Amino acid sequence: MTAIPGENVELAQLPIRDTLRGKEPYGAPQLPVAAAMNTNENPHPPTPALVADIAKAVAEAAETMNRYPDRDLATLRCRLAEYITERTGVPVGPQNLWAANGSNEILQQVLQVFGGPGRTAMGFVPSYSMHPIISAGTDTTWIAGKRTADFALDVDSAVAALEELRPDIVFLTNPNNPTGHLIGSGDLIRLIEAAPGIVIVDEAYGEFSTGPSAVRLIDRFAEKLIVSRTMSKAFAFAGGRVGYLVAAPAIVEALLLVRLPYHLSVFTQAAAIAAIDHRAETLASVAHLSAERDRVSTRLRELGYTVITSHANFILYGGFADEARAWETYLDGGVLVRDMHIPGYLRVTVGLDHENDEFLAISESLAAGLAGEKK
Amino acid sequence: MTAIPGENVELAQLPIRDTLRGKEPYGAPQLPVAAAMNTNENPHPPTPALVADIAKAVAEAAETMNRYPDRDLATLRCRLAEYITERTGVPVGPQNLWAANGSNEILQQVLQVFGGPGRTAMGFVPSYSMHPIISAGTDTTWIAGKRTADFALDVDSAVAALEELRPDIVFLTNPNNPTGHLIGSGDLIRLIEAAPGIVIVDEAYGEFSTGPSAVRLIDRFAEKLIVSRTMSKAFAFAGGRVGYLVAAPAIVEALLLVRLPYHLSVFTQAAAIAAIDHRAETLASVAHLSAERDRVSTRLRELGYTVITSHANFILYGGFADEARAWETYLDGGVLVRDMHIPGYLRVTVGLDHENDEFLAISESLAAGLAGEKK
Repeated sequence: MTAIPGENVELAQLPIRDTLRGKEPYGAPQLPVAAAMNTNENPHPPTPALVADIAKAVAEAAETMNRYPDRDLATLRCRLAEYITERTGVPVGPQNLWAANGSNEILQQVLQVFGGPGRTAMGFVPSYSMHPIISAGTDTTWIAGKRTADFALDVDSAVAALEELRPDIVFLTNPNNPTGHLIGSGDLIRLIEAAPGIVIVDEAYGEFSTGPSAVRLIDRFAEKLIVSRTMSKAFAFAGGRVGYLVAAPAIVEALLLVRLPYHLSVFTQAAAIAAIDHRAETLASVAHLSAERDRVSTRLRELGYTVITSHANFILYGGFADEARAWETYLDGGVLVRDMHIPGYLRVTVGLDHENDEFLAISESLAAGLAGEKK
Repeated sequence: MTAIPGENVELAQLPIRDTLRGKEPYGAPQLPVAAAMNTNENPHPPTPALVADIAKAVAEAAETMNRYPDRDLATLRCRLAEYITERTGVPVGPQNLWAANGSNEILQQVLQVFGGPGRTAMGFVPSYSMHPIISAGTDTTWIAGKRTADFALDVDSAVAALEELRPDIVFLTNPNNPTGHLIGSGDLIRLIEAAPGIVIVDEAYGEFSTGPSAVRLIDRFAEKLIVSRTMSKAFAFAGGRVGYLVAAPAIVEALLLVRLPYHLSVFTQAAAIAAIDHRAETLASVAHLSAERDRVSTRLRELGYTVITSHANFILYGGFADEARAWETYLDGGVLVRDMHIPGYLRVTVGLDHENDEFLAISESLAAGLAGEKK
């Protein structure tokens, strides 16, 4: 093998920031398996019609790709506004919308504006694991709030924590990942009222739940409420990397102060617009996935698992004496699930019908060894 | 007009960070003009063959876009390594490469790892205006080093400044933007040796210069040297948004600690690979643009302008009594140049031949009013 430049230097020798020492990169295993059920992707590939429209839109965009993209995403924001208006019944405009390379970049921009050194961000864990990572990446002090033993949010204690700790930013993941819990409408309002600063309602899985979107609350809580969403899940667009937020126009203006100019490529903008235009066919998969989620949940319960009722496209289920070993058993059977490092539990993303069947077959074989049975 | 949610709230009411108060978003005007010569784009659109290959590659990528992209960019990094090896003669491997949504995101990741609160970044201004902005965005204290009256880098005084101020990170833009200066090989080594911490050699315009790439110095300065580059300019891929860096593998590993997972979409990865595969035809435009740069420079000098000798695809030229008014005159004539807020100077990007002619015709009409003539 040919030597490559600088290969003799080790990471430990570099002057990286102290806060990064000993850390590992974020990331679920990307393994070649028959059934990838670990990253909450939508298992339904796009229709040939959508693929054709994306190819056409991208070819058109490519003709002028020597020029920078529209920095302000005018067309994409109009289309996203149309979708949100249609879905929530709230007449939002493009001034209420902002988009970036995945909701991770959206959240990073929000923390660059409203977080930072000397400021705090709070979430109620277990929740989306990127929230503390993005907080750390922007030097925002992370405060881990608590959930109950069954991972639900106790609203009284959460409100008390907000009033006591007064975080500059609070994350409310609704439905929550990895538990699938939904915060009810009245509880959400109580939490927003109690928060002293910015409230990010992360609705990455919003389309899979029957609860209303917090978008309807933006006008009431205009100076503090940000609703973040993504095209990754319901739109089956994880590879396209488009996250977005809905908020008061002034909040969008504030994000322009930190966004890297031209952050969203002409290809991403063109493909996302095509995907939004095809939403009728894509979103049709959401109802089916929700039905499959309920079928899988019911069967897991019948098998003796503890199942957290989910309002998203995944299920947190447990009872394992050794969840890491169970994870291996699934993998041996060609099914990749997610070990969230929650003792006794694993998380499975709802897949195609036959994938769910394969997952349930392995779950059945593992059910005999459940911790509950052993005791 | 329909009211939209939250429109009564003003930016000033929001709890944004103090460091952002009163700031304006970065951005050159995006105006519809006949000749856009303000953002250092490559004026040559891609060939139909490249457009067709991008459409094909993107259509293929779209078929599985319901899945997340390759987080580690394996194929793209191999192709970039091939290109850099071919161009510089240094046998780099994919472990030496990292890519992101534009070199801005690359630089932001570098500052998130090596900069941050309590650390400093230094550049010699005027230089790329995003360097201080990205420093501020990552809470890295910016130190503005000086250039001589004709915008050159006085290496003795720069070395002395590095030894005195000991910045954690130093930016050396080579060729420099907006001046077009090139740091010679011996001077570059002196500067790298004098720098106590990380050195980012920003070679965004490297292909337009005849100087060697700093990539050849990576093995020698493995623990400190990062060479950042972009596909925006030479590859005529500004709309595609791919910046990259070349460095020791340990530096790339360090960046993985802060990169947002799945930051580069399947479309961006597919299109960039196609663009690299077509590099022979794209890079052919570089030689022509360099020749045009020299033709335009010569003519501007003949007209009485002060012209900074450029090694990039733009020219900083001056002598204007009122450069803001001159900028308007160009715009009235359908030519958009860049006002860098350097008294007496404007910057023009080398365009297509006929655009350069149009630019020179307006420059000729303005030459009578040059400050030097008036005195």
